[in-house]
Amino acid sequence: MKEHTKILNEFLRLFDNYQNEVNREDSKVLLDLSPNELKQKFDFSIDRKGISYEALLNAIENYLSLSVKTGHKQFFNQLFGGYNLSSILGEMTTSIANTSMYTYEMSPVATLIELEVIQKMCDHVGYEDGDGILTSGGSLSNLQAMLTARNKYFPGVMEQGTQAFPKMTAFVSEEAHYSLEKAGSILGLGTRQVIKVKTDISGRIIVSELERELEESINNNEKPFFIGLTAGTTLKGAFDSIQEVLPLVKKYNLWLHIDGSWGASVLLSKKHRHLVEGIKEAHSVTWNPHKTMNISVSCSALLVKEKGVLERNYSTDKIDYLFHKNKNETYDLGKKSLQCGRRVDALKLWLSWKYYGDNGYEKRTDKLVELAQYVTEKVQNHPKIELMNIPSFLNICFRWLPNIELDVNPFNLELRESLLKDGLGMVNYGYIDKDLTFRLVLTNPEIDKEDIDTLFSNMEKMAIEISTNHTKKAIAW
Amino acid sequence: MKEHTKILNEFLRLFDNYQNEVNREDSKVLLDLSPNELKQKFDFSIDRKGISYEALLNAIENYLSLSVKTGHKQFFNQLFGGYNLSSILGEMTTSIANTSMYTYEMSPVATLIELEVIQKMCDHVGYEDGDGILTSGGSLSNLQAMLTARNKYFPGVMEQGTQAFPKMTAFVSEEAHYSLEKAGSILGLGTRQVIKVKTDISGRIIVSELERELEESINNNEKPFFIGLTAGTTLKGAFDSIQEVLPLVKKYNLWLHIDGSWGASVLLSKKHRHLVEGIKEAHSVTWNPHKTMNISVSCSALLVKEKGVLERNYSTDKIDYLFHKNKNETYDLGKKSLQCGRRVDALKLWLSWKYYGDNGYEKRTDKLVELAQYVTEKVQNHPKIELMNIPSFLNICFRWLPNIELDVNPFNLELRESLLKDGLGMVNYGYIDKDLTFRLVLTNPEIDKEDIDTLFSNMEKMAIEISTNHTKKAIAW
Repeated sequence: MKEHTKILNEFLRLFDNYQNEVNREDSKVLLDLSPNELKQKFDFSIDRKGISYEALLNAIENYLSLSVKTGHKQFFNQLFGGYNLSSILGEMTTSIANTSMYTYEMSPVATLIELEVIQKMCDHVGYEDGDGILTSGGSLSNLQAMLTARNKYFPGVMEQGTQAFPKMTAFVSEEAHYSLEKAGSILGLGTRQVIKVKTDISGRIIVSELERELEESINNNEKPFFIGLTAGTTLKGAFDSIQEVLPLVKKYNLWLHIDGSWGASVLLSKKHRHLVEGIKEAHSVTWNPHKTMNISVSCSALLVKEKGVLERNYSTDKIDYLFHKNKNETYDLGKKSLQCGRRVDALKLWLSWKYYGDNGYEKRTDKLVELAQYVTEKVQNHPKIELMNIPSFLNICFRWLPNIELDVNPFNLELRESLLKDGLGMVNYGYIDKDLTFRLVLTNPEIDKEDIDTLFSNMEKMAIEISTNHTKKAIAW
Repeated sequence: MKEHTKILNEFLRLFDNYQNEVNREDSKVLLDLSPNELKQKFDFSIDRKGISYEALLNAIENYLSLSVKTGHKQFFNQLFGGYNLSSILGEMTTSIANTSMYTYEMSPVATLIELEVIQKMCDHVGYEDGDGILTSGGSLSNLQAMLTARNKYFPGVMEQGTQAFPKMTAFVSEEAHYSLEKAGSILGLGTRQVIKVKTDISGRIIVSELERELEESINNNEKPFFIGLTAGTTLKGAFDSIQEVLPLVKKYNLWLHIDGSWGASVLLSKKHRHLVEGIKEAHSVTWNPHKTMNISVSCSALLVKEKGVLERNYSTDKIDYLFHKNKNETYDLGKKSLQCGRRVDALKLWLSWKYYGDNGYEKRTDKLVELAQYVTEKVQNHPKIELMNIPSFLNICFRWLPNIELDVNPFNLELRESLLKDGLGMVNYGYIDKDLTFRLVLTNPEIDKEDIDTLFSNMEKMAIEISTNHTKKAIAW
């Protein structure tokens, strides 16, 4: 045990050093190395002979130094980030206890903890008698939502397959996350039966278009059964209007799913939860605490309004070597999951929620929205930056306009590449129609306005530099 | 940062205490509390107000003490267990770096590490130009295997759905893991189209029955496309004969999948890998390193013989806000996955494999098989224990025979419950036909013969006690 303690202490030292490095003002967010460059700096090989713990710790130190620093205050690239010690402690505890979520017998405390966070999330959604399950990511939550709807609306499909039924159609917006179209493909509907409804300029589903598509599908003798609205689209951060779609849900008797992978955390804020007004009428909700709740990747929940629907996706009656018939069998969460063995993702969320409390999470959420508003204003007030979306949440899309005559797309791409190359900041990009746009997202409430100022000042310097270099090249020609 | 260091040091102390407790000879494997009892001992509530790190650490200490000790040497219950510091260090590092596996840009080192372990596993299988992806569990690996086969054998099914095609059938044994039948249900085939082929007394698929079922399906105008053999069944630990099935795979032009979630690790042993002879001819293999390789839950791989098949399950061409067209795009592992954001499960496996080396893993695997043989002999030589399977790997099924006239099933159930109640040991059970059987599995190579002796001696004492109690009751009547 002494060696074990020594190694762990040594590991803590690496952790400390890493944190100091991430927080150092002039540290790089990333090193931007190609695979070949990386292979020069890191020995990936696994040999027949083992290595010592000392060598292992060296590899870990190297791993940390070569990874993108998602806790860095110039990291605005992904829909997650930041540093959350309570969640990290949860991850560490999970790996030490090393249990699995299928049965109460195997994971008694973790089971009740998962039930507690599910209940907590249901409360925030407004489900009075809801249920849910943690999954290994938002794509799987969305898959399970569509599966649950399919199995509920077409009794017998589980046993007989989709072939015994009329063509089923699901409806999402053209800006919905790709996991929903993919779910249609996996579930045997086919991607063509996942109808992508047009969105308005802010990225929200056009409700009249949705109705038109529903009618068209019915006229084609198909059976619409599922609407998947998005609370916080990936690129623009748009929230489909749940309230406006609810009448259609009732009229056509459909399952309404809200993909709130990104945006459902807005429920934590009294000030901003109006964005998902009506969510409690939805049949299911995806919510990823690993995004703005800063839980370590991954942590996703699928919540459902009706108790019992998840268990009906598959009968575990005959699986008597795992699911025993005993007094605690209703607590066996594996019966609600698409997975069998499943990691304990509940503990880190529970610890973090305990630590911050609802109040703390409300403040954190509000701060993120404030920061987003600050970025928006900054963009709007800058003569050389064009705002590309109508921000309603934490996504701000924008592009820089070159000082000289240059194609705007390659100019912005070059700007991003320069930023990455120098390790000064990380902001992702996408396309709105054919225009390349930066997509800055706020997920780390430890970030302050000064950090945002730093980013834009760095970008500005680079934008000027790139323009100058192109001018020089033009003259040289 | 000082507070951070203090908290982590405090956490290490808890970790140390926990390890000492697990290793203490007379410590309990579990506490066996009902949900209501547990709620008395643990405050599950999350309040509006947050709590201190001190309170958080208390909760963690409590969590550890109330969890089942899967690293305890009297834990024989699940297909995982043991204590592996190198893997735990990997988990901790993963949560500190907190990245996600979809793109090289986001996780450069972790991407190359995942490619390295996939390559390593392909080498062990014997794939010359294979590929693969880590998934969040064996059920998802099996689902993706059947999906990949479906999409390959029925071009256009991704877009048009299963309805545009003849009825598809998949074939597994009646002892196959339930995730394969469930996969058929999810994928729109229907559970009825997942044909459960009869097994012989040792639990292996009967090849002549498989051929009969294939013929019958063809005669019914169905399209067989998938055979899923099991390398190590969940209850009996049986290995379907790959060699005997290969001619049928060729004759009927089918996709052959090996579900080696449990048994594929036998590949690590030169002495025992004959159990999966022919595996390199299979189109895909599931392998869960979180089982006998003692990687923290969860860690599962889906390996495929043909490069490119995984990417063809879904086109990510239009997802330009995430998958950028650049020089490193072929390294974006998200294109091969059913998930989008995905936890770094590769690091812990890689670190552990580095630490033990192939040699270390070979020794560990051989030791597990030796221990299993020791248990088997012990069972066979005991007058009051009946061996219930023909062990070929790490599962030994047995039941105790009561000294007096008692129904055997309830007697064995009572025996297990007593064991759990006293926290003395944990061995799972299932049913072979209608007979309740203990299923002892070896997954922790730190276990020694003495630990096994302890288990059986405890069981024997209890068996006598239970018989005595029943005799007394009978006399009292």
